[in-house]
Amino acid sequence: MAVVLALDVGGTKLGAAVVDDAGRVLGRGRVPSPTGTAPEPLYEALLACAAAALRGADVIPGDLSGIGVAAAGPMVWPSGEVSPLNMPAWRGFPLRKRLAEEFASDRVLIHNDAVGLTVGEHWKGAGAGTANLLGMTVSTGVGGGLILNGRLNHGASGNAGHVGHVVVEPDGPVCACGGRGCLEAIASGPNTVRRALDEGWRPGPGVSADGVALAAAAAAGDDLALRNLARAGRAVGTAIASCASLLDLEVAAIVGGFSQSGPPFWEPLRQAFATHAGLPFAAACRVVPGRLGETAGLLGAAAFVLVPDRYGWDPDPAPGH
Amino acid sequence: MAVVLALDVGGTKLGAAVVDDAGRVLGRGRVPSPTGTAPEPLYEALLACAAAALRGADVIPGDLSGIGVAAAGPMVWPSGEVSPLNMPAWRGFPLRKRLAEEFASDRVLIHNDAVGLTVGEHWKGAGAGTANLLGMTVSTGVGGGLILNGRLNHGASGNAGHVGHVVVEPDGPVCACGGRGCLEAIASGPNTVRRALDEGWRPGPGVSADGVALAAAAAAGDDLALRNLARAGRAVGTAIASCASLLDLEVAAIVGGFSQSGPPFWEPLRQAFATHAGLPFAAACRVVPGRLGETAGLLGAAAFVLVPDRYGWDPDPAPGH
Repeated sequence: MAVVLALDVGGTKLGAAVVDDAGRVLGRGRVPSPTGTAPEPLYEALLACAAAALRGADVIPGDLSGIGVAAAGPMVWPSGEVSPLNMPAWRGFPLRKRLAEEFASDRVLIHNDAVGLTVGEHWKGAGAGTANLLGMTVSTGVGGGLILNGRLNHGASGNAGHVGHVVVEPDGPVCACGGRGCLEAIASGPNTVRRALDEGWRPGPGVSADGVALAAAAAAGDDLALRNLARAGRAVGTAIASCASLLDLEVAAIVGGFSQSGPPFWEPLRQAFATHAGLPFAAACRVVPGRLGETAGLLGAAAFVLVPDRYGWDPDPAPGH
Repeated sequence: MAVVLALDVGGTKLGAAVVDDAGRVLGRGRVPSPTGTAPEPLYEALLACAAAALRGADVIPGDLSGIGVAAAGPMVWPSGEVSPLNMPAWRGFPLRKRLAEEFASDRVLIHNDAVGLTVGEHWKGAGAGTANLLGMTVSTGVGGGLILNGRLNHGASGNAGHVGHVVVEPDGPVCACGGRGCLEAIASGPNTVRRALDEGWRPGPGVSADGVALAAAAAAGDDLALRNLARAGRAVGTAIASCASLLDLEVAAIVGGFSQSGPPFWEPLRQAFATHAGLPFAAACRVVPGRLGETAGLLGAAAFVLVPDRYGWDPDPAPGH
């Protein structure tokens, strides 16, 4: 039985798990992400989290077949220097090199967090048994990953899967990426909340103006909340229809906090998908919530190492390749 | 030296070529497509075209390593029963089976014509040396194909690459596919001409109202022609930006008669791409005209057989796969 250490590096929390080749989680660690700007305390917190997972699994580093990491982007791939957008402590931080030294392992694989959750949902979740999957997260941002012909797709520079920057409103708002009308500019939680606030929506007294509050307001029938969740849902459904036509997908699996906004988000999403996926093969793509919740990223990170034929890659390609 | 017979089955013309493994065309045949509704005359015309190519190359069927076909869709893939939209003579015509019998060959591979031109442009054209290419044709329709990680991508049912049905105007016109706001509904030659006519554009006396006339009018400064070519170009540029973000592409290569409408089409295309491709990796995708012209499809069809590692597939997958 092979076991690996899986790490999930996000702006809100750091997660670790020891995972075996059947996808069982044998031990876990989790801490809030340090918010400072010094790189080493963040790295130390990640190591502490890993140590907790190893202790819980009763595994020592020498037992590990390798280490898989799903980290907030951007990063240089496949070399694994990470610069997570919301974690200023790391800018070009050589995470792969540091972990390889720390654990004396030559199998350390680091990829984008949205790629991790896609692999997790393909290995053990909503995409299991399919060969062509779009995994996506609709949360603080909108990200994604692609399994095509049964294998993880990387693109030219490891950036394949950026479904958040598919254009859904050509004359829409400017996006943080520098583009215009991107899915993320319209359908992320913060952008949806901001638009609702601009239109006059207010959360109840003492309640934060966030996606959870907006979903609660929509569930209670608030018109502005309903309208803005519908716009976000339609944008997601439209983008998925484009992806299904372009890639002949079997499943699109959606995770992320803001995607859990219920029917006021999902019904317009499904309607927009049905409106825009006209070709029979595209209309046949199933659009579903992910099944693994927050564990998706850790299972995917583990699968980078545990299932190399489908999800792995060569992190040290020869020069010129 | 391996030689193959390549066939190009389109609504306007049938083409054939004998191609060697260096991509040299050793013989050619070409006839206008019969327009009747009987299946056999169309098949006989295709065989005559093939015979001309074989004669020109001084090759007999027994010399062939196989037969590659790029055919107008839709089709059942990979079994190769074709129902070309604009060729009512063939509905579920068992083209692969017939050719396999005719030429006593067990290597007959049939794919979509837009996939053929994509493979051609990747093997010997604008995408040579890259690993991630969108090939597309902007003509009577808008179609495409994908090379990802150096290999032809098929999708779940052989339909990957349908870039013509990426959504570019969510509230735009209904598309022939049943969707709404698809690239093809906005940017194909006939749809662009129709829109210009609706707005009052008229070609000169005795001139057909087609894409060539519209491009000529735009070149002469006609406002309606310019406006409508610009809308088509912008739609293409927007869709390519979405594809570049989603797939981390290196090149998008555009062929097809209507794409040869000059700067009134290409400048808005490039502007829209620059506006919408915000992420650096997406902006780095090169958007170029194809290099092979009408030979792209035939070279691609040849490459299905000649370069199986990159462009081939198993046409008889085991049941359950």
